[in-house]
Amino acid sequence: MVYQVLQKNPILKRGVSSMKGSLLYEGKAKRVYHTTDESEQLILSYKDDATAFNGEKKSEFAGKGRLNNLITSKVFQYLHQHNITTHFIEALNETEQLVRRTTIIPLEVVVRNQAAGSITRRLGIQEKTGFTPPIIELFYKKDELNDPLINDVHAYHLTDITEQELTFIKQEALEINQTLQQLFLKAGLTLVDFKLEFGRLADGSIVLSDEVSPDTCRLWDRNTGEKLDKDVFREGTGNLIDTYENILHRLEESVCVK
Amino acid sequence: MVYQVLQKNPILKRGVSSMKGSLLYEGKAKRVYHTTDESEQLILSYKDDATAFNGEKKSEFAGKGRLNNLITSKVFQYLHQHNITTHFIEALNETEQLVRRTTIIPLEVVVRNQAAGSITRRLGIQEKTGFTPPIIELFYKKDELNDPLINDVHAYHLTDITEQELTFIKQEALEINQTLQQLFLKAGLTLVDFKLEFGRLADGSIVLSDEVSPDTCRLWDRNTGEKLDKDVFREGTGNLIDTYENILHRLEESVCVK
Repeated sequence: MVYQVLQKNPILKRGVSSMKGSLLYEGKAKRVYHTTDESEQLILSYKDDATAFNGEKKSEFAGKGRLNNLITSKVFQYLHQHNITTHFIEALNETEQLVRRTTIIPLEVVVRNQAAGSITRRLGIQEKTGFTPPIIELFYKKDELNDPLINDVHAYHLTDITEQELTFIKQEALEINQTLQQLFLKAGLTLVDFKLEFGRLADGSIVLSDEVSPDTCRLWDRNTGEKLDKDVFREGTGNLIDTYENILHRLEESVCVK
Repeated sequence: MVYQVLQKNPILKRGVSSMKGSLLYEGKAKRVYHTTDESEQLILSYKDDATAFNGEKKSEFAGKGRLNNLITSKVFQYLHQHNITTHFIEALNETEQLVRRTTIIPLEVVVRNQAAGSITRRLGIQEKTGFTPPIIELFYKKDELNDPLINDVHAYHLTDITEQELTFIKQEALEINQTLQQLFLKAGLTLVDFKLEFGRLADGSIVLSDEVSPDTCRLWDRNTGEKLDKDVFREGTGNLIDTYENILHRLEESVCVK
């Protein structure tokens, strides 16, 4: 699948290494590079590092970068098929993808269909409590503050988004939730919650950015309830690589993404 | 002033002790009693205890209960004059007041005109940063969770309020903010932020409840910037009783409340 993508990619014919410019930013899970010949495109290079609890727990898993790159590519292609715009252009190779350049809005937009993780401790809500409609939470992306929960008015004070744009982001997040629920349902998975980041293109418009992977989603096996996401690392309950391979395999088996 | 209130109160003629029923609830700063002859009225008895940082810091200040009872009574009378409905009926004596019975909605509604206290640490905002419009924050009243910050959708899941009711509460909080800013301006004080609690009357309608005092407001001297509220206790920077006496004196001097 990735091999075919490579063949179709005209830029790849010139070789990825020749188009990869200087390092723009290094995050916990990805490096972001300029492209040498296209200022409005960037290359995301997925790392093998895993971090949890705002960086308190860290490890490295050989092959994790490949898995998240391939899973995110597949998910974003599926979203495109369902008329959701993202920054994604295409996978360049096993660990790198080409994306449209965005300026990330410093908000983590979390959508919760069921209670799991931090919300159970923070609000004393029992795990698996269902939320209809889903709960949307905003966290201010700021490592030194441990990404605090904020409300809408905080967001207007802390970022450059307008009320209209935040309304759009929330609607888009709910739309993405419905689309991803269908995608993962086909793969025998329940989408419990997930985190999105949005970015601004050069023209000011806002699109889904960053990644969608088992690092950013809670995915439970629909039949057994087994946790098949980063919680195996957070809670030390399973093999991260095997788990992420399982997710990629299920997506490849169940979803036709051209 | 209080003496006059006592004279005008028909219930008082029968004696407070004869109307005070069983203890309904004891909080950190007040005891709440049933009345013996009127099920829709309660007696609030202000304690001398001071607590801060969700109960981590505790102390007792002889006279604090009297001051908060008299200050709150004066503030609520002023709010009534400005067409804001509250649970307050009247002061019964120096430490007790008669109120309409409400079921408290477990939300702390905080209004911030300037940054001070927890928001400066939580969001990295410099003290005295102005907020226009003011920031409204909701905290879920739950001691064992340390009263966590929540958003509107959390409030719908955690309490029985509707979207329409939350909109009313926020509008009311902004209206109360404007009215209190005027009140404290006359007393040479800047209203930096404050916390409100709302309760539901027997007919389901929502009114301002609890107290408005230097325990629940940040008040800074308009000229010197001196902190004249519970921060003198939180930060150990001044004498709490002298400070609260100062606030009561300024309100008595500057505001005509019949």
